[in-house]
Amino acid sequence: MPSEVIELSGHIIDSWTLPRAWDIIMDRGGNFVVEEMRVGVSKTETSYARLKIEAPSDEILERILSELQQFGAVLVHGNDAQTVAVEQNGVLPPKFYSTTNLPTQVRLNGQWVEVEGIEMDVAVIIDQASARAYCRPMHEVQVGDQVVVGHDGIRVHPFERARDREAFAFMQSSVSSEKVKVLAIHEIARQMQDIRARNGKILFVLGPAVIHTGAGRYVADLIRRGYVQVIFGGNAIVTHDIESALFGTSLGVDLRSGEQVEGGHRNHLRAINAIRALGSLEKALETGLLREGITYEVMKRNIPMVLAGSIRDDGPMPSVINDMQEAQKKMRKEVQGVEMAIMVASMLHAIATGNLLPSTVRTVVVDINPAVVTKLADRGSFQAAGLVTDAELFLRELAEALS
Amino acid sequence: MPSEVIELSGHIIDSWTLPRAWDIIMDRGGNFVVEEMRVGVSKTETSYARLKIEAPSDEILERILSELQQFGAVLVHGNDAQTVAVEQNGVLPPKFYSTTNLPTQVRLNGQWVEVEGIEMDVAVIIDQASARAYCRPMHEVQVGDQVVVGHDGIRVHPFERARDREAFAFMQSSVSSEKVKVLAIHEIARQMQDIRARNGKILFVLGPAVIHTGAGRYVADLIRRGYVQVIFGGNAIVTHDIESALFGTSLGVDLRSGEQVEGGHRNHLRAINAIRALGSLEKALETGLLREGITYEVMKRNIPMVLAGSIRDDGPMPSVINDMQEAQKKMRKEVQGVEMAIMVASMLHAIATGNLLPSTVRTVVVDINPAVVTKLADRGSFQAAGLVTDAELFLRELAEALS
Amino acid sequence: MPSEVIELSGHIIDSWTLPRAWDIIMDRGGNFVVEEMRVGVSKTETSYARLKIEAPSDEILERILSELQQFGAVLVHGNDAQTVAVEQNGVLPPKFYSTTNLPTQVRLNGQWVEVEGIEMDVAVIIDQASARAYCRPMHEVQVGDQVVVGHDGIRVHPFERARDREAFAFMQSSVSSEKVKVLAIHEIARQMQDIRARNGKILFVLGPAVIHTGAGRYVADLIRRGYVQVIFGGNAIVTHDIESALFGTSLGVDLRSGEQVEGGHRNHLRAINAIRALGSLEKALETGLLREGITYEVMKRNIPMVLAGSIRDDGPMPSVINDMQEAQKKMRKEVQGVEMAIMVASMLHAIATGNLLPSTVRTVVVDINPAVVTKLADRGSFQAAGLVTDAELFLRELAEALS
Amino acid sequence: MPSEVIELSGHIIDSWTLPRAWDIIMDRGGNFVVEEMRVGVSKTETSYARLKIEAPSDEILERILSELQQFGAVLVHGNDAQTVAVEQNGVLPPKFYSTTNLPTQVRLNGQWVEVEGIEMDVAVIIDQASARAYCRPMHEVQVGDQVVVGHDGIRVHPFERARDREAFAFMQSSVSSEKVKVLAIHEIARQMQDIRARNGKILFVLGPAVIHTGAGRYVADLIRRGYVQVIFGGNAIVTHDIESALFGTSLGVDLRSGEQVEGGHRNHLRAINAIRALGSLEKALETGLLREGITYEVMKRNIPMVLAGSIRDDGPMPSVINDMQEAQKKMRKEVQGVEMAIMVASMLHAIATGNLLPSTVRTVVVDINPAVVTKLADRGSFQAAGLVTDAELFLRELAEALS
Repeated sequence: MPSEVIELSGHIIDSWTLPRAWDIIMDRGGNFVVEEMRVGVSKTETSYARLKIEAPSDEILERILSELQQFGAVLVHGNDAQTVAVEQNGVLPPKFYSTTNLPTQVRLNGQWVEVEGIEMDVAVIIDQASARAYCRPMHEVQVGDQVVVGHDGIRVHPFERARDREAFAFMQSSVSSEKVKVLAIHEIARQMQDIRARNGKILFVLGPAVIHTGAGRYVADLIRRGYVQVIFGGNAIVTHDIESALFGTSLGVDLRSGEQVEGGHRNHLRAINAIRALGSLEKALETGLLREGITYEVMKRNIPMVLAGSIRDDGPMPSVINDMQEAQKKMRKEVQGVEMAIMVASMLHAIATGNLLPSTVRTVVVDINPAVVTKLADRGSFQAAGLVTDAELFLRELAEALS
Repeated sequence: MPSEVIELSGHIIDSWTLPRAWDIIMDRGGNFVVEEMRVGVSKTETSYARLKIEAPSDEILERILSELQQFGAVLVHGNDAQTVAVEQNGVLPPKFYSTTNLPTQVRLNGQWVEVEGIEMDVAVIIDQASARAYCRPMHEVQVGDQVVVGHDGIRVHPFERARDREAFAFMQSSVSSEKVKVLAIHEIARQMQDIRARNGKILFVLGPAVIHTGAGRYVADLIRRGYVQVIFGGNAIVTHDIESALFGTSLGVDLRSGEQVEGGHRNHLRAINAIRALGSLEKALETGLLREGITYEVMKRNIPMVLAGSIRDDGPMPSVINDMQEAQKKMRKEVQGVEMAIMVASMLHAIATGNLLPSTVRTVVVDINPAVVTKLADRGSFQAAGLVTDAELFLRELAEALS
Repeated sequence: MPSEVIELSGHIIDSWTLPRAWDIIMDRGGNFVVEEMRVGVSKTETSYARLKIEAPSDEILERILSELQQFGAVLVHGNDAQTVAVEQNGVLPPKFYSTTNLPTQVRLNGQWVEVEGIEMDVAVIIDQASARAYCRPMHEVQVGDQVVVGHDGIRVHPFERARDREAFAFMQSSVSSEKVKVLAIHEIARQMQDIRARNGKILFVLGPAVIHTGAGRYVADLIRRGYVQVIFGGNAIVTHDIESALFGTSLGVDLRSGEQVEGGHRNHLRAINAIRALGSLEKALETGLLREGITYEVMKRNIPMVLAGSIRDDGPMPSVINDMQEAQKKMRKEVQGVEMAIMVASMLHAIATGNLLPSTVRTVVVDINPAVVTKLADRGSFQAAGLVTDAELFLRELAEALS
Repeated sequence: MPSEVIELSGHIIDSWTLPRAWDIIMDRGGNFVVEEMRVGVSKTETSYARLKIEAPSDEILERILSELQQFGAVLVHGNDAQTVAVEQNGVLPPKFYSTTNLPTQVRLNGQWVEVEGIEMDVAVIIDQASARAYCRPMHEVQVGDQVVVGHDGIRVHPFERARDREAFAFMQSSVSSEKVKVLAIHEIARQMQDIRARNGKILFVLGPAVIHTGAGRYVADLIRRGYVQVIFGGNAIVTHDIESALFGTSLGVDLRSGEQVEGGHRNHLRAINAIRALGSLEKALETGLLREGITYEVMKRNIPMVLAGSIRDDGPMPSVINDMQEAQKKMRKEVQGVEMAIMVASMLHAIATGNLLPSTVRTVVVDINPAVVTKLADRGSFQAAGLVTDAELFLRELAEALS
């Protein structure tokens, strides 16, 4: 029977690492023997376990190891990480190691080296010369890149549940619409202040409902107060933001009276056309056409705003990136260093951003639809805390809490 | 071919009465001839139509007439309303007229008389002696009651769309989570002030999530400011309100910290048990056990609060009515004179209340789940305006707008 | 510092009992020392842990113990269960033990005795004479009843995750609308066959949408094939079932053509009135008025159907119980011996039933709305497996799989 | 006061055209006088109205006319359509006419000419030489193109409610999860047979849940039977379809057992990588790597499948179009001639497709989430009929109904 010995250490019982590992082994049809186990006798001490894992076939053993690695399992008899060179641009070697969004190290010449720019579902490239390891998406790998394969020499730092739960309880799970959300909002505000106190980066991912609900003004306010360092969105948010700046409407609804003043789509097409006529958003600022709104505030301050197009876009508005790989590349660049991500009323761009964020980024997903909130976690961004609430009232309360 | 001539008058085109009538006739398999038609030439003038309706059978004709009456159709050759006496308690004569929630008149001795206490799906009883007409639910009719049958001598005042749409646009339809809700909330506040200025009655229907989200304090505030004249709810709202007053928790969650401080259901059972030990909510006030919360505020002010039990109740808490007919009777009594009904995070009690309200009561349904908001309208309370938003933040904003 | 020593044994690691216990201790502000720990070296062996728990106050210690008991913790220095006599009908002694829905034992004269009729959120009564222990809801306790208080001598059998996960994987969690539901439905069918092969009882809890969607015929079919031993529902399901049997409609929609043939509520009032005129459902069968449908099928076979009224009911239909405590009592009686509960398109009655079911009953909740599916689990019926799918198509597929 | 005289004719009362027109005039602050009105005296006769519309300003009058045109209003004193030449590529003249998805005609030299390839929110280009009119999206207009501006000489054919409602009642509105869906599914099947009998084109828009739920096999079956002439989707559907063909899983879940057999995302990355290694989907067929599934079936039959990328894509899979304008262009080409569009479990691609479809295409949106179903109609595809049901069971029933 194929077998392998692994080690797990840390808060492996109270972080539920050990029981999860046992689950996986049994669910996938394997078996295990606890060769050694030391249990921390108080809540500050860590535990240690060494398990021998057996499986009916090499393939199943390989599956089990691949999953256990996500919980921090390390092969006891492991060697340095193994690599295979890329032979065709944009194509990985068959047994490529696919990353998680957890902090990950690879062993090079006996030393554990941090993988840089970690994100989920990409490959790890090793540069032996500089003894460094990088993440790289499949379509960007080049002939000759050394790609990590197999399971040797890979160590993932599992997600440990926060010790000090009182401080930010909801960050561990989600706040249903049936819990006290004002508390959670004020806690988010407090964390934002902490991050800004040390000059950290906060990312907002915004859907068009932010504008439709008249909540654009609260976001503009947060930008002016210095709480927004990056924005991700699409054609719709920028278009309706500019529609509201130029005509006072969003999808034809007057944001000051709530009345429908236009048949619907005409004003947003006019807004796009007006900017296209000038040639760029920059020109719209220079000429004084654009005098308020989210776009105005970020451009005045040179805050990066990445606008990724989608198949349903009208226009599009200048600055919207229509090539998906190019847009991802730009988002990848801008997520570097982000400490907190706040995603409001966005599904497509929130999931796309979730794919790019390391698990260490505090992520808050705000949507009135509980399905959106759980979808992000289902897609692997398990660190995302959800807040099932009204986007407009959330932003209003957040802006108030921060003023 | 069976036929009948009806008249429609008023704003029958812009209130969509006429097109709806034509739809019904055609959908049910009938046919019509416009015998006379006068169209108002400006938006303040009314219109008039006289239609001859034909149907392939008496049964289908009867169906068509029954539906057209809800849009204000009156039989041209109609007589006084016809009645049949009840022969068995709680059982109606076969062809009983079943009400809508629209203002309704019946013709007695050639005079149109208003049906008192109108609500949907009940019978109309005529008291010839006093020349009055009343609503009565099926289970309350008594042997000898004269019940209106057939279609003669019945006139319904159809629901006309408000002329002054700007004033309260959303009252005509619903506000999705993608519209500006702060505007709608402030408009509701303004209407509440108007109603209270003329000493009108405002009803709140509340679900337990109001307490779980910590929004009980905003309702208590509205009560203290005089904006609540009646409350409807169930065992859950009163139990968690008292749990929060006695222990600071709701379903075991500390409302000041958001932390789970109890395994869950224990505190609410303790709350019920404590009140049962005293014998009544009144005793809990007298003894000083109960010193805050919604229940405390309404009892101190003798504001009626009808608590209707349900099959899933623990306890129950004293004051909760366990007999459904008795509870309905009490709710029926208390809805009299209500001018506005605000239903927050409640489904069961909101639908029950909707059944009892005339269409003339301004009704606002607030829930984060759009299905709850539409369900009420589907059940016949078409006058209900929905606000798809967070109950906690809605009440917080409403209390603020009114202070 | 107050402290207590507890023991945990069984599959306490892979059933996640131990990590959950540690979580609770820490979350509530306590501390622990592992006094002894033996870990099973393979997946068939059990583990054992003895922990000394400390807390800053007696109250907190008591909370921790109360929660740990739900995971099977037993006080090492425990005595027999302690009781206090009821002094007032319907009122429990202050420190009453509140049950979970897990199998529970109490120690009487040094012997562990099973608590009979276990359900959640009720008291345990001890009859010393017969050495037996029973569950009893608060409102049913009588002066002199010996009620279990405190934590001594109580042992709960925690919920262990099924070893053989392949057989019924979804029973452990829930099947989202994005998973293969046909597989789950066929597995449910197989389990129903197993239960019936050994003459077990299957309970159906049904909401009115079962009739509105035309799926009543599939339930009738399941009844005829012997797969339904008890039905729980309300006024709506029985009323629309009889409306469909008498008039072919549900809420006025023709179930064979999908067309609206009546303005809405009239046919269901006519159905109720027709049965009230006869006096009972039994008479409707005897006289031949009722010849098909769910009600017809169950009455012909003397299958118990408990119909619990609610505050929103019209009529009500004869046989609907209007007193909530009486209805609960009847449901309590009929859930005895149930091995599987299938709840379709019902929220109110599903939650009410969930409150009465021991955790050992296989429970499947089918609803198109994911919130209904999770609500039941949130309310404590954690054994409930949810299937987010269409009730009509679920019943159609189930009936087919069983034929 | 600025004024204008318009005419409306056709089934303007029972298609609710006239009341809607009056609503718009009043809602926008205008006024009207009925100059002439002839009402059809039976349901087969049409009606006619000539209205003088007044508004407080030219801007408001223009808004009113712009909305009335969508209901078929024609300026009585109208001239030929006016055009302005494009002066900058991709930029429209300021007063450009923005289309609806309704059949539209423009007047050229006194003749009404049909606008070709009608879709919503685009411009109309006139080619005087050939006396033809075309739709063109903003970003595709070229210097010199003659773009229709203003309101003269434009005639929209309003959406008339089907006379023969019985035949396909739900096509007029939507089927909630509380209605009989089997009837609707069989009606859809019947319509598909009709369309195929005359060799018409049926379009499917598919989301990845079709594969996750194991319903890919039913779609494959429909393709084999000739019921699918075009497919629109994204990277996810094609990737999981190929994942399931190569490994039997979708997102790592075994579609035959329902078990999770992989940690999650690995198999879909392997699937993409395998195809990238070969260079194209075509190669995967040629080499025999791909032997089943939706992609296999359409490629074998040369059925066009347009795969539009999105910002959240992994890979991407070869054949997925990453440039949004290019993808739209391809979709625009393939929707020509489509008679029926069936959109299953897709939001992004369904909305994108809805934008491109004329209102005359029978459109069915199937999703378990009612919000998706209503969103499409809200975005202007009012002809879309929604079916709130389970995608997997819908496709299973549809495939059965068609076999």
